[in-house]
Amino acid sequence: MNPAEIIARKRDKKILTSEEINYFVLGYTKGDIPDYQMSALLMAILLNSMTAEETAALTNAMLESGDQVVFDPHKPIYVDKHSSGGIGDKISIILAPLMAVCGLKVPMLSGRGLGHTGGTLDKLESISGFRTDLSIEEYKAGVESVGCIITGQTAEIAPADRMIYALRDVTATVESIPLICGSILSKKFAAGPNSIVFDIKCGNGAFMKNMEQAEDLGRNLRHICQAMAKGSAYLITDMNQPSGRAAGNALEIDECVLALNGQGPDDLMQIVFSLGECMLNLGGISAGNEAIMQQMAKIEDGSAFEKFLEMIAYQGGQTKAIESGKPIAPAKKIISVHSDVSGYIESIDTYRLGRLIIEMDGGRTVVGQQIDLTTGFVIHEKIGDQVDRGELIFEIHSSGKLEDSYLIKAFRECIRITNEEVSSPELIKSKSI
Amino acid sequence: MNPAEIIARKRDKKILTSEEINYFVLGYTKGDIPDYQMSALLMAILLNSMTAEETAALTNAMLESGDQVVFDPHKPIYVDKHSSGGIGDKISIILAPLMAVCGLKVPMLSGRGLGHTGGTLDKLESISGFRTDLSIEEYKAGVESVGCIITGQTAEIAPADRMIYALRDVTATVESIPLICGSILSKKFAAGPNSIVFDIKCGNGAFMKNMEQAEDLGRNLRHICQAMAKGSAYLITDMNQPSGRAAGNALEIDECVLALNGQGPDDLMQIVFSLGECMLNLGGISAGNEAIMQQMAKIEDGSAFEKFLEMIAYQGGQTKAIESGKPIAPAKKIISVHSDVSGYIESIDTYRLGRLIIEMDGGRTVVGQQIDLTTGFVIHEKIGDQVDRGELIFEIHSSGKLEDSYLIKAFRECIRITNEEVSSPELIKSKSI
Repeated sequence: MNPAEIIARKRDKKILTSEEINYFVLGYTKGDIPDYQMSALLMAILLNSMTAEETAALTNAMLESGDQVVFDPHKPIYVDKHSSGGIGDKISIILAPLMAVCGLKVPMLSGRGLGHTGGTLDKLESISGFRTDLSIEEYKAGVESVGCIITGQTAEIAPADRMIYALRDVTATVESIPLICGSILSKKFAAGPNSIVFDIKCGNGAFMKNMEQAEDLGRNLRHICQAMAKGSAYLITDMNQPSGRAAGNALEIDECVLALNGQGPDDLMQIVFSLGECMLNLGGISAGNEAIMQQMAKIEDGSAFEKFLEMIAYQGGQTKAIESGKPIAPAKKIISVHSDVSGYIESIDTYRLGRLIIEMDGGRTVVGQQIDLTTGFVIHEKIGDQVDRGELIFEIHSSGKLEDSYLIKAFRECIRITNEEVSSPELIKSKSI
Repeated sequence: MNPAEIIARKRDKKILTSEEINYFVLGYTKGDIPDYQMSALLMAILLNSMTAEETAALTNAMLESGDQVVFDPHKPIYVDKHSSGGIGDKISIILAPLMAVCGLKVPMLSGRGLGHTGGTLDKLESISGFRTDLSIEEYKAGVESVGCIITGQTAEIAPADRMIYALRDVTATVESIPLICGSILSKKFAAGPNSIVFDIKCGNGAFMKNMEQAEDLGRNLRHICQAMAKGSAYLITDMNQPSGRAAGNALEIDECVLALNGQGPDDLMQIVFSLGECMLNLGGISAGNEAIMQQMAKIEDGSAFEKFLEMIAYQGGQTKAIESGKPIAPAKKIISVHSDVSGYIESIDTYRLGRLIIEMDGGRTVVGQQIDLTTGFVIHEKIGDQVDRGELIFEIHSSGKLEDSYLIKAFRECIRITNEEVSSPELIKSKSI
């Protein structure tokens, strides 16, 4: 096989064989195929696309470029969940222990904040001592004994994906559905799950701005999972406003504690339970209403919260602050933002809210940057809510670095209020199980 | 400006500005932009194409990456000719001195054999002592004093083209009309002509297999020349059989000597005179029938042949063998191939004839390879000719390395003979002046 001939075949819109894809990806990982041939192939893939079978072969090749965790491929209970990213999206942190007490094993490798969105690992690190750098052995043992683990990717997992991702970033080949799917799935499946539920966020706070893009991603992820003989389901959920009320690292952990104690906001819990239902279904545990009731019961009886504490303890985190029910990492100051008019909330600039957290050092502008885990906001009114002049809309949790007046103005600009009644958006826009 | 953003614009089918193209090409030549970004851009160009204006900007950027020869931009007499390559195509070697005695200056940088086709430099090197490595100063002075020079590209001419060409070869980005045109024209115009006549060969012995491809290349070359404010014209000429009778390096020089002494085969001379007419027209010397008559007269009176000897002498070659009229570099053995049937020649596998010369070491399979300048063939019957059983069709000029019986069989297989009358092909298929 010859790299230039493989590039030529994709250039000419031919379908690559899994042997060709393997040869290329493994040759690249070993350094036998240079960057310039890989980048030519990536551009040809971006412009001429790939079938689900080709993308499955690409995913497998990247997955096989490094260490793979294998639990029991015959037991459906190893189920993961992946979100395409949004604001206030703390759902993984609630779902992992909840699913574990319902009978699943949840092997979850998560990431840092990306673009304007927050990252699960950053949020968990606001729990004092919590380790997101477990070794593969610690991770594997934790999934089996605790039932759920949320940790970071190790260097040994899918090194081809890491190399290709870095190259895509500088060669304008990021925006390709097959390459995006391959990157997500190679990391996810290297961590050992037998199936995955995808939460595809759609709206002005998500990467997928419209239903067409979201459905396209969802369909592709499912086709590739099918081609890889893995279970999958996806929900498309609304991201035109933050999930729940809290956004920002430590603030979201506080909200997870509330949620696991039965006090989660309705919008957040509805998505949690729907995703949980899909996971339990894929895991062969329960389905439909039964799956919803099972989850509610596990929150009611405190066992989901207990499991959360157990996971934190296993990963080296201190549970005392969590158990106290108090904010785990309070910000220097809380600034209240009140409405200056009366009316109905019509829309929320969710993207800008995400950028404002980053401005308050709650997210990164450069890889590896230290962040301030205490900053963020709590939103008290959502789309469709009626507000009176002077009513509290936001509490901004600030480090004091930025002027209060600047923040108040900026947050106020993120909310559009109208005189006419507005209905609140459908939370779950589409479901494919 | 940012390389990834420029790649993204071409990926998204945008038209690049000449500033962007300059920045990219010069950055790449200086080593500031790495191979992997250039190869991603090349693939995007191949798949999304470029306008004539973009290609003109690309050509200018490559041309400006190195030394440029400038004669007198206001004198139209500096005219070059470029062939897209074929078998037995020795036309440049006849035209250069012929045009010089007609009043043009012919500044010609030529190349080696490419693929199955021969190269003008290789052919000229069968003249003992002939130098194809003139310095830019020697070249420039020769064009002015002799009136025509045929030499090789120096390292200082269009280094960007050389770097990009090497990268295209290994990234499956050769087959792109804008990239092919940019490569041809940057080298050609760096050598100083004010206009160029293109001889686009079309047929089973050429790179362009059909009229659509040939017209596409011709139109593109003209549009780019227009965008560069350079004069141009093109002919599409038949390459379904060798040009003239001789193919192979030294054998073609022998045929050039015949041609410049008024004994050239009709098919060859018809194309020579038509291209010459275009060149004289662009140079403002003569046009139409007058230009044809002028060329014939310069052959008749011996001055074109004298000019050829003058060019050879200027470039260090020995003229004695040329003047003797004998073969300049006879092969070890000549094998006659006779027809085994009677009929009319219907078709000739011209591509395979080219490959057979390479098999006889008359061309390269690897860059830099030493070749045997004595091998090749003379073809005595062409398409449409009637042949009798036992009549001489080929004389194979062999080094004896390959078995005679193998060569006879192979050459015979290149000729298809039919019982029905066949008309000879139109030599000039299209003309754009």
